[in-house]
Amino acid sequence: MSERLYLYDTTLRDGAQTQGVQFSTAEKLRIAAALDRLGIDQIEGGWPGANPTDSAFFDEVEPGRAVVTAFGMTKRAGRSAENDDVLAAVMNAGTASVCLVGKTHDFHVTTALGITLEENVENISASIAHLVASGREALFDAEHFFDGFKQNRAYALECVLAAYEAGARWVVLCDTNGGTLPGEIAGIVREVIAAGIPGDHLGIHCHDDTGQAVAGSLAAVDAGVRQVQGTLNGLGERCGNANLTTLIPTLLLKEPYASAYETGVTLEALRGLRRVSRMLDDILNRVPQKQAPYVGASAFAHKAGLHASAIAKDPRTYEHIEPEVVGNARIVPMSNQAGQSNLRARLAEAGIEVEKGDAALPLILDKVKERESRGYAYDTAQASFELLALEELGPASRFFELERYRVISERRRNARGEVVIVSEAVVTIAIGGERITSFYENPYGDEMQDAGPVNALWNALAKDLGRYQALVDDMRLVDFKVRITGAGTEAVTRVIIDSEDSEQRRWSTVGVSANIVDASVEALVDAVRWKLMQGQAAGAAAGEAAE
Amino acid sequence: MSERLYLYDTTLRDGAQTQGVQFSTAEKLRIAAALDRLGIDQIEGGWPGANPTDSAFFDEVEPGRAVVTAFGMTKRAGRSAENDDVLAAVMNAGTASVCLVGKTHDFHVTTALGITLEENVENISASIAHLVASGREALFDAEHFFDGFKQNRAYALECVLAAYEAGARWVVLCDTNGGTLPGEIAGIVREVIAAGIPGDHLGIHCHDDTGQAVAGSLAAVDAGVRQVQGTLNGLGERCGNANLTTLIPTLLLKEPYASAYETGVTLEALRGLRRVSRMLDDILNRVPQKQAPYVGASAFAHKAGLHASAIAKDPRTYEHIEPEVVGNARIVPMSNQAGQSNLRARLAEAGIEVEKGDAALPLILDKVKERESRGYAYDTAQASFELLALEELGPASRFFELERYRVISERRRNARGEVVIVSEAVVTIAIGGERITSFYENPYGDEMQDAGPVNALWNALAKDLGRYQALVDDMRLVDFKVRITGAGTEAVTRVIIDSEDSEQRRWSTVGVSANIVDASVEALVDAVRWKLMQGQAAGAAAGEAAE
Repeated sequence: MSERLYLYDTTLRDGAQTQGVQFSTAEKLRIAAALDRLGIDQIEGGWPGANPTDSAFFDEVEPGRAVVTAFGMTKRAGRSAENDDVLAAVMNAGTASVCLVGKTHDFHVTTALGITLEENVENISASIAHLVASGREALFDAEHFFDGFKQNRAYALECVLAAYEAGARWVVLCDTNGGTLPGEIAGIVREVIAAGIPGDHLGIHCHDDTGQAVAGSLAAVDAGVRQVQGTLNGLGERCGNANLTTLIPTLLLKEPYASAYETGVTLEALRGLRRVSRMLDDILNRVPQKQAPYVGASAFAHKAGLHASAIAKDPRTYEHIEPEVVGNARIVPMSNQAGQSNLRARLAEAGIEVEKGDAALPLILDKVKERESRGYAYDTAQASFELLALEELGPASRFFELERYRVISERRRNARGEVVIVSEAVVTIAIGGERITSFYENPYGDEMQDAGPVNALWNALAKDLGRYQALVDDMRLVDFKVRITGAGTEAVTRVIIDSEDSEQRRWSTVGVSANIVDASVEALVDAVRWKLMQGQAAGAAAGEAAE
Repeated sequence: MSERLYLYDTTLRDGAQTQGVQFSTAEKLRIAAALDRLGIDQIEGGWPGANPTDSAFFDEVEPGRAVVTAFGMTKRAGRSAENDDVLAAVMNAGTASVCLVGKTHDFHVTTALGITLEENVENISASIAHLVASGREALFDAEHFFDGFKQNRAYALECVLAAYEAGARWVVLCDTNGGTLPGEIAGIVREVIAAGIPGDHLGIHCHDDTGQAVAGSLAAVDAGVRQVQGTLNGLGERCGNANLTTLIPTLLLKEPYASAYETGVTLEALRGLRRVSRMLDDILNRVPQKQAPYVGASAFAHKAGLHASAIAKDPRTYEHIEPEVVGNARIVPMSNQAGQSNLRARLAEAGIEVEKGDAALPLILDKVKERESRGYAYDTAQASFELLALEELGPASRFFELERYRVISERRRNARGEVVIVSEAVVTIAIGGERITSFYENPYGDEMQDAGPVNALWNALAKDLGRYQALVDDMRLVDFKVRITGAGTEAVTRVIIDSEDSEQRRWSTVGVSANIVDASVEALVDAVRWKLMQGQAAGAAAGEAAE
């Protein structure tokens, strides 16, 4: 009989406290939906009332399988829970579940809050009781619990017992400063259970300040807690929280956890783990950590010659799990054979069937390698990859050539003395023997509205594409990502453009150059060519159907 | 009485197997010297004979305090240790200490090597005996030991006992695939000690495939091993090795380790830890991991408002150690999560003292919040934050105004019919009553060399800044980051620019606009203004000193 273990995600709250991370409401909603699909039990969405983004998130979040929890703090001393405006703002988010953080370390009560130890216990009891009386599920985040326990065992226990006795569904033991080692965590958890809070009412919240947040969380589970808190990719204050992207596969795949516990994440959902991790990096425009356990690009890369040759005989020789189980893939830089079968699989996905042993396959692999070493990223830009492969595989139509362009961005004062920003572009293309020049100037001049040189170029390019105009009119640009790769004088810019059409197709193309405008133009031209290729295929199919 | 614990670094061997890492001999020598200064006991330098870089390293390495060890593998079956050319190449490096890896997992002996179990034991015994007979210190890396032990306990033990009995100074238990959890590691180590190898002849070598290499290494120490292997910054195959940059401060600063053990690293040397970590990133041209325990730039960053206000009262409230102890520093970043005490602390760090309750504080917070909701990011762009705060706090000099600019990027064919890309910019600034217009055109035209419109604008702006020219000449742009926030038609571009000067100052500024060029210009202007502000402060200080 396996026991239920609950996963609680705080990417949107503690994760938002990562230096350099700032989520928009739309991004928070997208992350919450992905967590829900993954099978996370509970999602801490933020602190309603603390900032406009968090408040908007709770207004807009759609109900899913996961419980969405609002975060706040216990009421302040000298007023009732009902009259605490900070707590009221949290309640006003209207969530079925509310988590309040409170002090349990005597030093913090007197130093940071400056109130008496008794007042603090009363704040905890009254706040949790207020949640329960309002019909909410109550969670209590016991801040600095482990440090507090080591300093003043009796007081730390008094605080968490007060929360439990006031009706908290979960008492979450937080290693807020991240300095407690796994063995200490396990020992203290056992003492809390002995003091009267059952393990299925206890949660664990670890930070990675000694690189042991995952180990500390597992040690707490071993000792009896049944709720584990963490974040995607280990975001969070300072060194981050326990990394759920590492914890989840460990809990599902490794003994004793796999047999002993059941979580809301299925093995099927686990195959999407790498994708969820990458989605977050995309949103943050972060370079994914190659060496991340399970989901990193290098997690199943076998570089040492001895390892690679053994892997060819049996992958179990140097892999602790099968990479596919978490949606990852093996990389063996030495094995061209493995590369070719991967390549064929990828082309087949795009409807391009290539025979095993086709002479073009190594040529495509070489070209991808060479271009990726210059900054291209074909993993993301599938449409550009298909165009590259088709050029190697045989006579592929390029449809049109971009002969020249010129783009201007300008800030100046207009006749009325107001600051205006204007971008304009002129583009010349050749289609067959025909040469077409188009011009675009943005109609605004308002400081925040000029959409810049790439927008101007796109509008000029899309204005007149001759016989292909109908197809170009059917597409629109939906996303534009820029990354500087390399550093200093060797820096190159990689631009990834996502496009969409009326048939709900969405495709990504890539351009690379030291000049951001030129990189963008390359990605734009690929985006149009890919759309024209689909139009051509549809036309051919329609022709066949008519015959 | 504390026991001696030995630190063994394999950055130059296992670390060199990291995907994307390739050390030159000079880089290896530089890293070895830094490890020696840090107080590492033993440095595994590479595999002599396997590649020219490693062979050259052993020829050139200077003797230091640390023992330099050559790495290789046990002799192959069917020949004597004396007649194995691979082993001979390792011996020829002439090191006093040699580490040989060998199999201890029956599955690998039969599957990867394809020899009998007895032959493998004989290879281990004979190889280690050969090292001892040659007067070398012998180490045996027991590959896949934990997986082997779980599969065939008796055989795994037979292998390591053979090495120990043949005279190995250290038998290193390797979790080669990285899938063994800390609890298992501790249990198996205890069984090895019970089987007859004393803990002060046992080492541990962990990989981070479940994010627990540090915890696994500490669990092995708890169980009795007295040598710990790892790498700087956790380099190594796949997810990397145990991170010595994390392990060392934990062993020196945390109980029970601090009292129980003594290592070769002094508390004085520990203060150089962050610098050693950065040196390695510099050599690899990697962006340092901000969230790395102890040494990361965010390791002591306090973003949440509640944390920041407590830190201002007593840093121990949210720090598990003092950052200075590992050569790191506290950061209180600005963001819309921050409160007034956070703001005052942040300003104080920048040398701007503001009284509690100053009427400007809420105005600054509001402005930060409002601008962050439009896409600005002040926790990264500290310099832009300071400029914003100074404008609210009183009459602050803006030094100059950017009146207008115009930038052109163009792709066309030159007179010889070659495709060229050219960017040019013209910028007009006003300094006091003076108006200065500067022009820049890139001197290339080569497709990969034109550095684009932002580079052209920077060169035009920096060309003539009148009375401030000397200060502008002293700064250079070192990084340029672009992020599109929002999506679709509401997309805005955020640009962050990092600058440096000859005094090793590094500062970040931010610009936001729908037009990427205009966002860049805003960040450039802030970058220059911040530098001028430092120059002004220095001038004032010099003036005071002269009085």
